[in-house]
Amino acid sequence: MGVDQELTGSAGESDLSDLDAFFESTRDERLVDFLDLLRIPSIGTLPEHAGDVRATAQFIADRLEAMGFEHVEVSPTGGHPIVYADWLHAEGAPTVVLYAHYDVQPVDPLDLWQRPPFDPVVEGGRVYARGAADDKCHVYVHLWAARAWLETRGRLPVNLKIVFEGEEESGSDHFEPWIVANRERLAADLAVISDTGFFEGNHPAITIGLRGLLYTQIDVRGPKLDVHSGSFGGNIQNPANALATIVARLKNDDGSIAVPRFYDEVRPLTERDRDEYERMPFDEHSFIEQHGLHSLFGVPEFSPLERRGSRPTLDVNGIWSGFQGAGSKTIIPAEAHAKISCRLVADMDPESTYERLREFIMQVAPPGVDVTVSKLNEGMWSLTPIDHPATQAAAACLEEVFGEAPLYLREGGSIPAGATFANVLGLPVVLFGFTQPDDQIHAPNENVRLDNLDGGLRVVVRYWQRLAQTEL
Amino acid sequence: MGVDQELTGSAGESDLSDLDAFFESTRDERLVDFLDLLRIPSIGTLPEHAGDVRATAQFIADRLEAMGFEHVEVSPTGGHPIVYADWLHAEGAPTVVLYAHYDVQPVDPLDLWQRPPFDPVVEGGRVYARGAADDKCHVYVHLWAARAWLETRGRLPVNLKIVFEGEEESGSDHFEPWIVANRERLAADLAVISDTGFFEGNHPAITIGLRGLLYTQIDVRGPKLDVHSGSFGGNIQNPANALATIVARLKNDDGSIAVPRFYDEVRPLTERDRDEYERMPFDEHSFIEQHGLHSLFGVPEFSPLERRGSRPTLDVNGIWSGFQGAGSKTIIPAEAHAKISCRLVADMDPESTYERLREFIMQVAPPGVDVTVSKLNEGMWSLTPIDHPATQAAAACLEEVFGEAPLYLREGGSIPAGATFANVLGLPVVLFGFTQPDDQIHAPNENVRLDNLDGGLRVVVRYWQRLAQTEL
Repeated sequence: MGVDQELTGSAGESDLSDLDAFFESTRDERLVDFLDLLRIPSIGTLPEHAGDVRATAQFIADRLEAMGFEHVEVSPTGGHPIVYADWLHAEGAPTVVLYAHYDVQPVDPLDLWQRPPFDPVVEGGRVYARGAADDKCHVYVHLWAARAWLETRGRLPVNLKIVFEGEEESGSDHFEPWIVANRERLAADLAVISDTGFFEGNHPAITIGLRGLLYTQIDVRGPKLDVHSGSFGGNIQNPANALATIVARLKNDDGSIAVPRFYDEVRPLTERDRDEYERMPFDEHSFIEQHGLHSLFGVPEFSPLERRGSRPTLDVNGIWSGFQGAGSKTIIPAEAHAKISCRLVADMDPESTYERLREFIMQVAPPGVDVTVSKLNEGMWSLTPIDHPATQAAAACLEEVFGEAPLYLREGGSIPAGATFANVLGLPVVLFGFTQPDDQIHAPNENVRLDNLDGGLRVVVRYWQRLAQTEL
Repeated sequence: MGVDQELTGSAGESDLSDLDAFFESTRDERLVDFLDLLRIPSIGTLPEHAGDVRATAQFIADRLEAMGFEHVEVSPTGGHPIVYADWLHAEGAPTVVLYAHYDVQPVDPLDLWQRPPFDPVVEGGRVYARGAADDKCHVYVHLWAARAWLETRGRLPVNLKIVFEGEEESGSDHFEPWIVANRERLAADLAVISDTGFFEGNHPAITIGLRGLLYTQIDVRGPKLDVHSGSFGGNIQNPANALATIVARLKNDDGSIAVPRFYDEVRPLTERDRDEYERMPFDEHSFIEQHGLHSLFGVPEFSPLERRGSRPTLDVNGIWSGFQGAGSKTIIPAEAHAKISCRLVADMDPESTYERLREFIMQVAPPGVDVTVSKLNEGMWSLTPIDHPATQAAAACLEEVFGEAPLYLREGGSIPAGATFANVLGLPVVLFGFTQPDDQIHAPNENVRLDNLDGGLRVVVRYWQRLAQTEL
């Protein structure tokens, strides 16, 4: 669906036609500015692009400074900087921490790009470039939405604290420490994160749920060194066979997890939840095609979207032992290793889930080898109620601009910033953005729909206005 | 036990005191010659040592030529050469193909050697050097045993066809093709292989059995590319989990193999077999210590030696999938792979064993992934009857020289030459040699007992004599 271009009359209680007119009159300038942002190859994972990442941060800081933000800072983190800025003159109105990220994914395989990834082109209503959808379009939308208010009205309806990250694609290692260190100046009523998008078919959406993570490693050790499979085969436990046995015992044939009490705290789906899932059109066949999957496979009592959004998982992320080359080498390996992670949903506790998993692994481990389990990583799930006033305000703006009530999504993955804002700052989190599933995020020929961004600008200016009138 | 130095009186029907005297009088010369052979770093796997491998072949060929062997040849194979020579003037006596190998293992880790590996030293009755035990001592023993006959008596009691390999430690890739190509000139009555040794505790032994091999690979494929474990977890079959399930199903908890009909053709142990195994002293504790094992583990109905010599195995030699680095990467891998091999015993057929394994894997493979199984390698088991006259002749000589009836060993591994001589040339194979289990074969500080070699020389000269009087 497209944007309702005629809709300029009402934005909550106020007439925002002057802001909409500003967007019309700055159309060319906005596009040039967006393309300039896309031209800087801010690939955060590649050390040789560290200067580009920094230049992008400075590009954004300069614009925030120019439009009247204060305390503008390219703030060091130990890794790539965070761009911070605030505008805090909306007395009595809510304060919003606003998140997007300005770093981008690497571009390989380069030969699959139809145009160079940092030489953006506009074609068929879309802008093609690395970062066009993930996540520079949201940096662009928020910069220009704020500028529309500040240039047209000389003010913002809410207090904004901008936190644009430069390490999202490389692990966000320094993000949470920076948030902790800046906890006091980040005091706010709400966090808004723009790093998600619409549902398949370009249906407007708000992401209300993210899964948490528990990431573990199993190490199995047998003989001190690899030994000859002829001389020792039949007389010792093979660490790789033992590891396979452990891994196999963690799940049942139907895909469910066999760890006792694993599901004990999982919040059951309500009627309302299942109704929301029902509303979402889901085409299994095209989903399989689009993502190059073999087929779908999962616990049969739940639909694919329910399994993604509301059920925990257990997956091997990596496994290795012994000989991996071409041909044959006749050893019994000395050790075997697996990375195994779980996605967690409301109301699971990462710590007790880890304990149950560890205990079960030790219990099913075959004799004749040493088995250790360790936790590498964990992250909380998050779930913002649909009827939270900040969620409902966003929904109203999306419906007003895009002509369609948004869907409420629960994503299968995690956005570290979401958990950090919820856990460190204690804020409700609203996640919305304007990309959509065929934007080729992380892949060659990444792109974004310009009409979605036009609509996005109108949604955001309305959202600040509406939040000013909302009791959070 | 030591060698009976007094025993010079009888060797079958003949008095071999003149040969024993030759060994006494050449003691210094023999040692110098052995050390010279050990000094050439004939590491077959390292291309930079190809010249040394060739020089070693020439060293041996020169000695064979000098003592009166004919058709002496450093024969090209496509890899490292085979040293061929024959002496065929023992009319009416049996013809023996005699095998040893002159290449050696690499020396790393070099820092664990107490002396440089190619600068041999004699200490405490042992010679220390890479290749001292595996397998240059047998090249040395056979060269000097033949020379003792030729220099003392001007003849050998049997016809000898010498085949000394230069690629045993690097896979014997060109050995079988060379044997096939030279099948006619290798016509013989018996093959003698010297690349094995005594039993734990330095008890004389003859190796009568070797296990065969079936080496396979399982490939499991799911999504076209690695996918995000958050977005897809719970909705697709994980190839690594699926592979673990397959591997786990191949074996039972007691270590036995779960593949239907896997054991159908396995030759049961007779009373005589079990008695032979009973004769062998086996100290489980010191075996575990010596080889750095965790503990022993195997099918409880069989003893460790029975499991090694007379029972088939199934082991993972390598397994790999997805992320293997430090830290956490949240993917569901696109594919997963395992190398799985079986050791085969009499009377198993590699081909039908492979079919049963493949069929079972396909049957237990979970849904939602593509599974393929392929055969990478196979080799026949071999088992020479204890009461074969060539075995009994060797046993008599060992007992005569070392004062103790030999044990009859079934090794867990394979010696490619054994299967080749049996299958290509159709020969009975006798395997005996004079090293022993604490010689540090393939490890730093490899060494060999000089008294074992002295005894070995006397065994070999007697063996040729006794074979001349034996109906094969």
